[in-house]
Amino acid sequence: MADMEITLADGAKRSVENGSSVLEVAKAISTSLAKKAVAGKVNDQIVSLDQILSENDKLEIVTKDSETGLQVMWNTAAVVLEAAVQSIYPDIHFGTKGNSEHGFYCDTDNGAEQISVDSLPAIEDKMAELIKKQLPLKQEWISESDALKIVDGDPYQAKLAHANAKNGKVSVYKIADMTVLSDEVVLENTKDVKVFKLLSVAGAYWEGKSSNPMLQRVYGTAFFKQKELDAELARQQEAHDRDHRVIGNNLDLFFVDPKVGAGLPYWMPNGATIRRTIERYIIDKEVANGYQHVYTPVLMNLDAYKTSGHWEHYREDMFPPMDMGDGEMLELRPMNCPSHIQVYKHHIRSYRELPIRIAELGMMHRYEKSGALSGLQRVREMTLNDGHTFVTPDQIQDEFKSILKLMVEVYDDFDITDYTFRLSYRDPKNTKKYFDDDEMWNKSQAMLKAAMDDLGLNYVEAEGEAAFYGPKLDVQTKTALGNEETLSTIQLDFMLPERFDLHYVGADGEDHRPVMIHRGLVSTMERFTAYLTEIYKGAFPTWLAPKQVTIIPVNQKFHGAYAEKLRQKMAAKNIRVNVDDRNEKMGYKIREAQTQKVPYVLVVGDQELENGSVNVRKYGEKDSESENNNMFIDSLIAEIQNYSRTGDSSKNDELIK
Amino acid sequence: MADMEITLADGAKRSVENGSSVLEVAKAISTSLAKKAVAGKVNDQIVSLDQILSENDKLEIVTKDSETGLQVMWNTAAVVLEAAVQSIYPDIHFGTKGNSEHGFYCDTDNGAEQISVDSLPAIEDKMAELIKKQLPLKQEWISESDALKIVDGDPYQAKLAHANAKNGKVSVYKIADMTVLSDEVVLENTKDVKVFKLLSVAGAYWEGKSSNPMLQRVYGTAFFKQKELDAELARQQEAHDRDHRVIGNNLDLFFVDPKVGAGLPYWMPNGATIRRTIERYIIDKEVANGYQHVYTPVLMNLDAYKTSGHWEHYREDMFPPMDMGDGEMLELRPMNCPSHIQVYKHHIRSYRELPIRIAELGMMHRYEKSGALSGLQRVREMTLNDGHTFVTPDQIQDEFKSILKLMVEVYDDFDITDYTFRLSYRDPKNTKKYFDDDEMWNKSQAMLKAAMDDLGLNYVEAEGEAAFYGPKLDVQTKTALGNEETLSTIQLDFMLPERFDLHYVGADGEDHRPVMIHRGLVSTMERFTAYLTEIYKGAFPTWLAPKQVTIIPVNQKFHGAYAEKLRQKMAAKNIRVNVDDRNEKMGYKIREAQTQKVPYVLVVGDQELENGSVNVRKYGEKDSESENNNMFIDSLIAEIQNYSRTGDSSKNDELIK
Repeated sequence: MADMEITLADGAKRSVENGSSVLEVAKAISTSLAKKAVAGKVNDQIVSLDQILSENDKLEIVTKDSETGLQVMWNTAAVVLEAAVQSIYPDIHFGTKGNSEHGFYCDTDNGAEQISVDSLPAIEDKMAELIKKQLPLKQEWISESDALKIVDGDPYQAKLAHANAKNGKVSVYKIADMTVLSDEVVLENTKDVKVFKLLSVAGAYWEGKSSNPMLQRVYGTAFFKQKELDAELARQQEAHDRDHRVIGNNLDLFFVDPKVGAGLPYWMPNGATIRRTIERYIIDKEVANGYQHVYTPVLMNLDAYKTSGHWEHYREDMFPPMDMGDGEMLELRPMNCPSHIQVYKHHIRSYRELPIRIAELGMMHRYEKSGALSGLQRVREMTLNDGHTFVTPDQIQDEFKSILKLMVEVYDDFDITDYTFRLSYRDPKNTKKYFDDDEMWNKSQAMLKAAMDDLGLNYVEAEGEAAFYGPKLDVQTKTALGNEETLSTIQLDFMLPERFDLHYVGADGEDHRPVMIHRGLVSTMERFTAYLTEIYKGAFPTWLAPKQVTIIPVNQKFHGAYAEKLRQKMAAKNIRVNVDDRNEKMGYKIREAQTQKVPYVLVVGDQELENGSVNVRKYGEKDSESENNNMFIDSLIAEIQNYSRTGDSSKNDELIK
Repeated sequence: MADMEITLADGAKRSVENGSSVLEVAKAISTSLAKKAVAGKVNDQIVSLDQILSENDKLEIVTKDSETGLQVMWNTAAVVLEAAVQSIYPDIHFGTKGNSEHGFYCDTDNGAEQISVDSLPAIEDKMAELIKKQLPLKQEWISESDALKIVDGDPYQAKLAHANAKNGKVSVYKIADMTVLSDEVVLENTKDVKVFKLLSVAGAYWEGKSSNPMLQRVYGTAFFKQKELDAELARQQEAHDRDHRVIGNNLDLFFVDPKVGAGLPYWMPNGATIRRTIERYIIDKEVANGYQHVYTPVLMNLDAYKTSGHWEHYREDMFPPMDMGDGEMLELRPMNCPSHIQVYKHHIRSYRELPIRIAELGMMHRYEKSGALSGLQRVREMTLNDGHTFVTPDQIQDEFKSILKLMVEVYDDFDITDYTFRLSYRDPKNTKKYFDDDEMWNKSQAMLKAAMDDLGLNYVEAEGEAAFYGPKLDVQTKTALGNEETLSTIQLDFMLPERFDLHYVGADGEDHRPVMIHRGLVSTMERFTAYLTEIYKGAFPTWLAPKQVTIIPVNQKFHGAYAEKLRQKMAAKNIRVNVDDRNEKMGYKIREAQTQKVPYVLVVGDQELENGSVNVRKYGEKDSESENNNMFIDSLIAEIQNYSRTGDSSKNDELIK
């Protein structure tokens, strides 16, 4: 047979026999590679191992230990899952199936008797049975009309068969006597699904539209090795334990009730206390750093958002405008920038006043799709720790640095350490996409980079990821569920000052155009509280904890008065304290305070009463110790004022030289 | 001539000659009464002095020194004003004329050359001329068609002539060669307008509708005696000096710009500092008094307001609902009660938990007519110091008392002393108009009264002024412009717990219905700040002042460093302080700080630098004194913590026994 040339993933050319399959090339390279191979990637397209190659193909062998290998595993498991469900419920309908972030899923509609978590063990058993049978999985292309006959009576599958047909053919896998529609590449045999687990069932709208029927989505995950599955299950448990929605419910922090408003959280007293503490902290911090805090209306004439460009480019994320009858169209603001621009414009500004730093806890409304809403993390009404600095072009670097310093100080106070900086520039190959001022872009990008270097901060540079209106710095973190999230941002804006015709009078007596810097230190109150709940696992540091101290008298009759005296003493010093005087066992009360993650539980009995002491049990510590009550109170106050740091050292100090 | 009997104002019967006029009866009673008489009130209808009386008429002689006498004076002045304007601008159009709270007005439309304040002196001269001519003012009734001919070309007057015609006749006064449409009773002669003054010109929509043309309203006032006019002008000057809109502008507290949103105030940094201080104060006060503060969304599903009854009865004050596309109708809340009900309902409540006190600085939106909007006093977006207590019926009296005590404490901290209590009951003659629960009404009204008496508070009782849903207590104050305003309110509500099906589990294990108490201690942040601005005339007590201390170095070069050291020392103790280091004369800086009503101006020069002292000039005091800087700072901190009270005594202490 003649040879042909192909290119491997590392760029090397290789001569292979005409008509070679992916697996044959893998074998030719090495036996161990062939053993690990689960699919191929030919010209960036995933293919099965028996795919025949052509001259000049670019080939990558997909192995078990790769990200793509895992995708193929999950595709396979999804097909086996559908076959298993079909075998148990012959009349069930299927929506889409596919891979989620951490596994696979399959949408089902079983009419009046929907699949629930209770159905999962039986389905798992059936899957195991199909796997044990070692059934080959061979992709077949059947005619669209045959496919439609097979899925007859299942409107979702019929629609999918029609939509996915290529040249009149539909891709299927036959497993035992079941036929599963799928054009994904899968492993060669059901037995290749080594370890798997079904996890949960949740509602999912057909085609993601809330006006469509809700299907039941069965979630599972699968791996090549047991220890990988174990690690994933541990990760999921951890994510669940950290999930701010779970903790938020357990600690009575907040709730959302779609009946009264989807994505509109109610902050219960505990959550409200945390939020209020954050709000006061951040306002005081900003005021001390030269910010002028304002309150501006949540409503604004729609014309302002036409001027700003939001109405043109951002409309689908905005709430519907309200026609006030007398020609006024009011809009719930999606951003605070136009409001702060009004504050800037209310006076004529001199260069001597700049930088002018306007800040607000600004309530905004954004129309998120109902499927995207999640606890406090994704909401429709939110209050942003927002600020806009108006600077001369020369002040960009210094102001950027001072915002960064402030940001790191704030992170330090909240004990936030796990984040990365991302500096976004415009795409140098496509500068026409951006606001037109080459000099400004070049100068300001250089200033931002210089500031980062000057502060000795590590950062990633991302060309082409700047906003249309200017370069920016984002601070990235991860949620408990593993989603990347922007916690803070500093964005330069050359456009809005132009659109709203902002100016300041320079030393020369002439009008000049300021640059605007949008910045948020801790994101919205909603998202930040969700984030903190997750990083603290609900055990808020004392200064933020909704309840800081619970006092438990050993015997209410004898020690209740002392407990109440202590409570009053602490309350007068603004400590959030209560006495648990319920008619319950002491052990029960202590356990409950710990479940509520109260930082300090004080037990007071005969000895404490006699000595004027308290028996202190700190959250997360096993032992308790007795301490003079005044000393305890003094050290508690110091701890609160010190943002609950044990020492005086700031963890992020080394970040800022 | 035969006699007939009439009844006088005091109820006495009097026999008078048939065909007697009002003036003749007045003369018959006494010469002095006849001298003071300006009109009559016959069967509660104002009539002129020459009105002939009939058998059994009820007659009151209207005198110069009465409220009604003044109304007749202003009616007369308005007619003379219109005649004067007509004589100067023959082609001008007239809208309505009439009396305002403190004088008279006349609406005009002079096309491209509208009347302005600059036109007032000439109009005043013309009025004086008509008065000097001593022209008799005799009411005439002409046919509607004659009237329409006279006002031909004036569309407003034509509409008025037609609308006011009685039996085809229109009432007019002829003054020189002018004819003025008016069916008001006026004095007998232009000369009776003894003293008058034109005050201002302001836009007013024809028929009060913003879709109609805007006319120019000329305002004036008039009296029988010069000293009465002087007093009114002094009152107006005082009102102007206290007007929170004027002070708000001078001190840069806030602004409203109808171009970006009518009735939507922007709180500038100074105003925002005051508001933030009030907010923190009231939240801390409430939390210390057992309130649980929450944050709830400003939007809610419209259904909730259908359940509450707001949509049925209050719709015209509400913003238009927003159709979210997927069947959800969202409404900007006009009240916070349904939101706090959600918080109550989020848990099953036990009688042991009651009273449950839910509080919030709750943002609300109400659609006020654009003509009613005024600075911070009447707005469309407002944040209410709101609270709802859920109690058992037996707890009403105690809770009402505890709210009242808290209210009086709060008034004391703000140094509010000029207010009255108004207790409103249902109308005992028409109990069907109210929520149907006789026992609850009787019991709770008695409880409220007993609580007031128990606390030794003075109050007015108003039968028939309760809300539909329960009795209430209002605290009434007055604005600078003299309008009565409700500062605080405590309202019982038997209805909403019913409508939202609220309950608590009683000691008997059964469900019971709680009573809701709506209460606001200091009204909205907007209205309260307006009120405080007026009572303080902008000189906010130190604890509220946006800027508390201004330090002025005698010579920046020599004393600037000391000034800055002092500033840092105070700022570290959360004192709002600045150094005025501008290149201006010291006297100028001191005057400016006083114009800005900064409580303390510290001048530091050689002597202060040497002694570590400060030269203190307190706002409103003539002399300055030198003081050790630490002592000054300590006493300042004490003053702020003590809500700027000089002593420790609470002014309203005697109110609460």
